[in-house]
Amino acid sequence: MFNNILIIGCGLIGSSILKASIQKKISKNFFVFEKSKKYRSIIKKFNKKIKFLTRLDKNLKQIDLVILSTPMSEYPKFFSSLNKNLNHNSIITDVGSTKKNLISLRKKLSKNLDWVMSHPISGSEVSGPKYGNANLFKNKWCIIIKDKNVLKQKKVERFWKSLGSKIIIMNPDDHDKIFSVTSHLPHLIAYNLIKTAQDFQKKKNKNLIKFSAGGLRDFSRIAASNEIMWRDIFFENKTNMIEAINLFMKNLKDFKKNISKKENSKIIKKLINSKVVRKQIISQKQDISKPDFGRE
Amino acid sequence: MFNNILIIGCGLIGSSILKASIQKKISKNFFVFEKSKKYRSIIKKFNKKIKFLTRLDKNLKQIDLVILSTPMSEYPKFFSSLNKNLNHNSIITDVGSTKKNLISLRKKLSKNLDWVMSHPISGSEVSGPKYGNANLFKNKWCIIIKDKNVLKQKKVERFWKSLGSKIIIMNPDDHDKIFSVTSHLPHLIAYNLIKTAQDFQKKKNKNLIKFSAGGLRDFSRIAASNEIMWRDIFFENKTNMIEAINLFMKNLKDFKKNISKKENSKIIKKLINSKVVRKQIISQKQDISKPDFGRE
Repeated sequence: MFNNILIIGCGLIGSSILKASIQKKISKNFFVFEKSKKYRSIIKKFNKKIKFLTRLDKNLKQIDLVILSTPMSEYPKFFSSLNKNLNHNSIITDVGSTKKNLISLRKKLSKNLDWVMSHPISGSEVSGPKYGNANLFKNKWCIIIKDKNVLKQKKVERFWKSLGSKIIIMNPDDHDKIFSVTSHLPHLIAYNLIKTAQDFQKKKNKNLIKFSAGGLRDFSRIAASNEIMWRDIFFENKTNMIEAINLFMKNLKDFKKNISKKENSKIIKKLINSKVVRKQIISQKQDISKPDFGRE
Repeated sequence: MFNNILIIGCGLIGSSILKASIQKKISKNFFVFEKSKKYRSIIKKFNKKIKFLTRLDKNLKQIDLVILSTPMSEYPKFFSSLNKNLNHNSIITDVGSTKKNLISLRKKLSKNLDWVMSHPISGSEVSGPKYGNANLFKNKWCIIIKDKNVLKQKKVERFWKSLGSKIIIMNPDDHDKIFSVTSHLPHLIAYNLIKTAQDFQKKKNKNLIKFSAGGLRDFSRIAASNEIMWRDIFFENKTNMIEAINLFMKNLKDFKKNISKKENSKIIKKLINSKVVRKQIISQKQDISKPDFGRE
């Protein structure tokens, strides 16, 4: 499919792409640009074929697919090297979690280069190549942003399909709106709940952590996700985030009123409604129906 | 340990107590009072020894342990029967998720009866005896409220220990405060997030559910929990809930400001801080460290 793939940034996602691409024989050669010595020493052990670039210079000429998989705030660092050295036939793609910001960023890239944007909906609370997982994208959505270069878009689609992803084409605006609610807001809420528990623990001098199995623990897992990645997402999807937070706060105020006034039928209606959503999520295969009694 | 145990209300928790008690041979006889015909027909299949009471009358004389495991709002229904018929040597216990309210309720119970309060920190998003699980309490906390009748308190402790629980003694005030943050607020937040996603879906006419794997799905599981049980908890722990919601909203407003003004160091500090809590939760064995890449 490709001759020379370059993965820039080889954390959880980058290293999972690398492992899956090697397994599926998607390229003849695999290049990695990764600044962390620790990460490089882990990646070296994956496969002897992997070649490490220490600089992004003339050696870029041979690359036919570049995958940006650093945190989004680092993408611009690579643009001048890409502009100078990348072959115009090659394709750039990325794994960033927001897209409207990247459309603006693209202006800084040479017009002769093609950047087909993608967003694999997969990940975990852990970071780094230590957790790299060849099956990370299997049966997961990968969102591709509709591109004017149809041929190159198709090639990026085939790339993700060969890693096991299911493809959906979206425009940047829809993408950022949808994921502000299905992913970005839930992460913010998880972080906020952990902060609230910490504040409460300090204020009341009680050990809460010990009793976190009743709900808090599930949020703590989500709130252990990479801080640079999530800072970038919250900042870059600012407008949608603020709209989502406002809607969440309005609903929380209503809930507070329901509790305060013991409004029985209103609260029961809401609690039952949640089950409808749960059923839809299971029927759309976004989760399994098997009950969770705690992970062991 | 006992001769005749009676479980009033045999949903997920009651049926799990029943299964575990039979397995551990905690009593000679096992009685169940359960109003749902559907539930009774499921429970019948557990074991031939189980006896069903259709009324709580003179047949209560023989019972030496009563376990209230209906939603808390139903407890008072049984008090007049218990007052009239229960032997003064026997013990009442319960599995309610809030305790200060039950201390008030106890006044309606005859002074000659002993109610040692307990709260096993275990459960799931599913309801009913279909999911009854003999291992539900294994290695989980069970909170026992300090009782004036030390002998009977010890007996209830032994009961839960024999089902596999680890025991902690608390006063009702501490109990309700701690669980308002570790359990009740997380559930409310999960319900509120699902409500917000529903509102957003309606408002923007976008299919969110399809893309819920990025965070929303984990909340939807928690928000599928039993509505009667959670209505009771929210209402009965009202004062602590409102304090917790207020603290949560204050923190969320701060987060919104951090995002809106792109306050980098402030937000990074919070996101890193969450990882500290996560590590404590794992080191205190409230969760496992194995990364979650989605349930399959």
